[in-house]
Amino acid sequence: MAASAPSSSAGEPDPNSTNLRPPSTTYDAWCGVAHGCTRKLGMKICGFLQKNNSLEEKNRIVSALKEQSSRNQLSCENSERDGRFRHTETDFSNLFARDLLPAKNGEEPTMQFLLEVVDILTNYVRKTFDRSTKVLDFHHPHQLLEGMEGFNLELSDQPESLEQILVDCRDTLKYGVRTGHPRFFNQLSTGLDIIGLAGEWLTSTANTNMFTYEIAPVFVLMEQLTLKKMREMIGWPGGEGDGLFSPGGAISNMYSVMIARYKYFPEIKTKGMSAAPRLVLFTSEHSHYSITKAGAALGFGKENVILLRTDERGRVIPADLEAKIIDAKQKGYHPLFVNATAGTTVYGAFDPINEIADICEKYNLWLHVDGAWGGGLLMSRKHRHKLSGVERANSVTWNPHKMMGVPLQCSAILVREKGILQGCNSMCAGYLFQPDKQYDVTYDTGDKAIQCGRHVDIFKFWLMWKAKGTVGFEQHIDKCLDLSAYLYNKIKNREGYEMVFEGEPQHTNVCFWYIPPGMRGMPAGDERRERLHKVAPKIKAMMMECGSTMVGYQPQGDKVNFFRMVISNHAATQSDIDFLIDEIERLGRDL
Amino acid sequence: MAASAPSSSAGEPDPNSTNLRPPSTTYDAWCGVAHGCTRKLGMKICGFLQKNNSLEEKNRIVSALKEQSSRNQLSCENSERDGRFRHTETDFSNLFARDLLPAKNGEEPTMQFLLEVVDILTNYVRKTFDRSTKVLDFHHPHQLLEGMEGFNLELSDQPESLEQILVDCRDTLKYGVRTGHPRFFNQLSTGLDIIGLAGEWLTSTANTNMFTYEIAPVFVLMEQLTLKKMREMIGWPGGEGDGLFSPGGAISNMYSVMIARYKYFPEIKTKGMSAAPRLVLFTSEHSHYSITKAGAALGFGKENVILLRTDERGRVIPADLEAKIIDAKQKGYHPLFVNATAGTTVYGAFDPINEIADICEKYNLWLHVDGAWGGGLLMSRKHRHKLSGVERANSVTWNPHKMMGVPLQCSAILVREKGILQGCNSMCAGYLFQPDKQYDVTYDTGDKAIQCGRHVDIFKFWLMWKAKGTVGFEQHIDKCLDLSAYLYNKIKNREGYEMVFEGEPQHTNVCFWYIPPGMRGMPAGDERRERLHKVAPKIKAMMMECGSTMVGYQPQGDKVNFFRMVISNHAATQSDIDFLIDEIERLGRDL
Repeated sequence: MAASAPSSSAGEPDPNSTNLRPPSTTYDAWCGVAHGCTRKLGMKICGFLQKNNSLEEKNRIVSALKEQSSRNQLSCENSERDGRFRHTETDFSNLFARDLLPAKNGEEPTMQFLLEVVDILTNYVRKTFDRSTKVLDFHHPHQLLEGMEGFNLELSDQPESLEQILVDCRDTLKYGVRTGHPRFFNQLSTGLDIIGLAGEWLTSTANTNMFTYEIAPVFVLMEQLTLKKMREMIGWPGGEGDGLFSPGGAISNMYSVMIARYKYFPEIKTKGMSAAPRLVLFTSEHSHYSITKAGAALGFGKENVILLRTDERGRVIPADLEAKIIDAKQKGYHPLFVNATAGTTVYGAFDPINEIADICEKYNLWLHVDGAWGGGLLMSRKHRHKLSGVERANSVTWNPHKMMGVPLQCSAILVREKGILQGCNSMCAGYLFQPDKQYDVTYDTGDKAIQCGRHVDIFKFWLMWKAKGTVGFEQHIDKCLDLSAYLYNKIKNREGYEMVFEGEPQHTNVCFWYIPPGMRGMPAGDERRERLHKVAPKIKAMMMECGSTMVGYQPQGDKVNFFRMVISNHAATQSDIDFLIDEIERLGRDL
Repeated sequence: MAASAPSSSAGEPDPNSTNLRPPSTTYDAWCGVAHGCTRKLGMKICGFLQKNNSLEEKNRIVSALKEQSSRNQLSCENSERDGRFRHTETDFSNLFARDLLPAKNGEEPTMQFLLEVVDILTNYVRKTFDRSTKVLDFHHPHQLLEGMEGFNLELSDQPESLEQILVDCRDTLKYGVRTGHPRFFNQLSTGLDIIGLAGEWLTSTANTNMFTYEIAPVFVLMEQLTLKKMREMIGWPGGEGDGLFSPGGAISNMYSVMIARYKYFPEIKTKGMSAAPRLVLFTSEHSHYSITKAGAALGFGKENVILLRTDERGRVIPADLEAKIIDAKQKGYHPLFVNATAGTTVYGAFDPINEIADICEKYNLWLHVDGAWGGGLLMSRKHRHKLSGVERANSVTWNPHKMMGVPLQCSAILVREKGILQGCNSMCAGYLFQPDKQYDVTYDTGDKAIQCGRHVDIFKFWLMWKAKGTVGFEQHIDKCLDLSAYLYNKIKNREGYEMVFEGEPQHTNVCFWYIPPGMRGMPAGDERRERLHKVAPKIKAMMMECGSTMVGYQPQGDKVNFFRMVISNHAATQSDIDFLIDEIERLGRDL
């Protein structure tokens, strides 16, 4: 259902194709000629009339049409080098990758193949937004591995025909998950933005690398300008500072720990962790696990990432931070870094940045704000106050691929102090970063990164910003937060729902338990907890089997499994929220 | 020149468009009707004839065509939900991102916009392979920043029209670098593979994330099967082991150091580097800087990454490794890890893996093979002997986005021991990796990674492998190596050339100095060295200004700037090699 059925009809010769198979002998000769002529004729008429306003010219074409004298007279499509390429029926069963460009005569099959792929993709896009389609067509791993009706994942020594490749493309989409579907709420990154999609298609076509201006001049400048704009939004004076797009929030957070360490103990770059005292990092128990992961990876050790207590809304308690800093110092450890989360993964909580910043200043600690999820709120005049104090941070993670709907991957690490990224990471590889280039090599970004090659993540984001303007992002964010308020208000007093924390959520995260009718009279206690723990997984499994919608669940601390609803999808409406609630109640009724 | 001129003609109403602007009053009514009718008619005829073999049906259509009675009778295109969407002339000047899906009536403008983008991209693809086009249209950063004829990189608060967005797409390509051009030799990653491109377009459209089977079922399985196939190529029994696709070779190499550390000192994950003795890593002075970068980032310190001497071809001298291991042990350090490079960045040298493996076994060290550049040779029966011994490695980096022509990014870290990636990196985040899911959660890959979200890098590679077969990759690799042999043989005795190292290159890297005629009589010495050092940068700058070709240069050790020619581009032929040599001689003649 993901795309149209294969449309090539075997044995039918295509006059536009460079496929040199002889026409099938069973083929009716008149049909072949008529088919070829009229198709070309129709297309040429479209083309001519599009390009030509002259009535005389149009009359000429209409006459030509009437006489059905077409093929030789009008078959000049390929000579229009700059014109629009016509998508014609092509038999791909005898075409292979080796027949495509740069093969001799490869242009026509290449264009037809790409247009056929685009046909599959645009059908998928249309269906993604169609609520009558499923979010997914679930199969277990062993089912897909065994092979589904001609969809064989195994690789082989010999090539497959392009027809099979097109079938594989359709099947890949068919058995995947429509993350842009209006009822897909499973992750922080949802939605399918059309401008962003176009941006990604262009990025793949340009297929270049961010390390030098030399091979990515436009993209490198776009990154620079966009990062500056983001720093302005953060509130750093004049948008000054530095930054990079990285392959995701976890890597961006890892950068923040690395540069904090370099700032206070630059000798670690050369001598290793043994050159410094025992360094400790602080982050809340509700923060993303990537901070602890970075601590483990970078050689601090998990136990030197100290978890801070939060209030019942999931926000750091600043007094706990100060107490733990004092405690660490008393033990002879060296407090280095504090992560404040702007939008926690599960509750969507915003840590009180200003109060944390006061403590960081008092004790001379690096302040990082992990705004992977909540950073987008800086674009909204109504909601940006939730990040109040972010301008006091030394570094900020902000993932446009989450709340701002930019396609994956798009994550920025932003740094207030210029030069420190370079200082921390540079290795001065001669083969890439030659000082004797003919252009201003300060635009070469590669030596700031822990990566060498770096994917172009900027273009889709830049293009979306151009196309929507700052106001467009603001509207998107305000709408998502309004929708989550709608959900919260709908269920907060509804029978069968319990909220995980009290009060209106700060972000779009709405966390709740659904209590099936048969459980509503149960007294609190272990039996109820154990049974409730199984409700969300069961409902989720049924949702996935039906393919009707997807929403996440998890336990948190001592709280048993609950649903975490998040909204970042610009296709979602109140009716989709209503649908979700109806669906939970339908599926959970008898649990 | 990158793409066709904007083709919308303002004021002309498009009957297929949902753009609701009234028709221009100056518009000739008859033309409008005729235009709409005949275009629709022609297209419908194509569509009908494509789908229908009946002669009677065809006759009916041809009659309908003759009568030119079309519009109402045949305008059912949009109701064919599974059919091919028609690309029609659309005026984008009054359309904005907000008019696209999920907007009401957004389907038609969405399809037209995407097809217009595809038109720009397919034009770019065609020109990429056209040797009469430039490789790049060079501008300095300040020129692009100042704005080129309506190409303004600055972002603004208000949205731009889709017409401007399309112009921006064209300009982005126009001022970029055609990395798929047959004469682009600048990096290890070159070429534009059409199947890979289609794979990337699909990946962007699916827009999902590798961390769980739940939201990437097909891609997760493709990754698993492809990694197994790669491990079989390496020669690990039964293809057993583990692995991941990471955002690039530098990150893959970083993984290898992390897991080596975890293997020997698992307590570092919890307690940090202070829990272990002073650990040292070994890699050659010709190896990629990412090993040292990983050493710095992970807390070992640069000075604990010990550089090994190489022979004059850039290959590690095993005796030097053993001497340095013994030396380190005598100093009380703990040798942990050896990196052997399979295909160095500059010389393309292959370290003698078997001899290094003997030493690693003797001293109980982790052996990593950095095959980011050379790993692809495992696909070639003729050349895979250069990696002889790779099956003895504990981990291997292999970047299909380099020698195998897969679009960026596509890099794998492969590990012989199962479970160690998970052990090293797992943090067991409840919100992502719930053990109570309804499917076999061993397919969830996220907790093995240092990333949380992870881009889908597998699909394009899987699709290319399907489309080419193993034999297709083998042919590609053999062809590139043949071409580099052609270049080597052409210049090794040619007047005005000096090879940087003697003998036929092991990989496609051909390193040479071009000596301009005016320098050929100069005696060896500082003056000659200084002058020669400037030759490659000057020629390169001229190449870029002309846009005729691009090839890299760099110094290495005590050797002044030389050209490093590399071939991974499947579009390159002997004539392009000839062109490069002619061009170097033309541009360098008077230096």
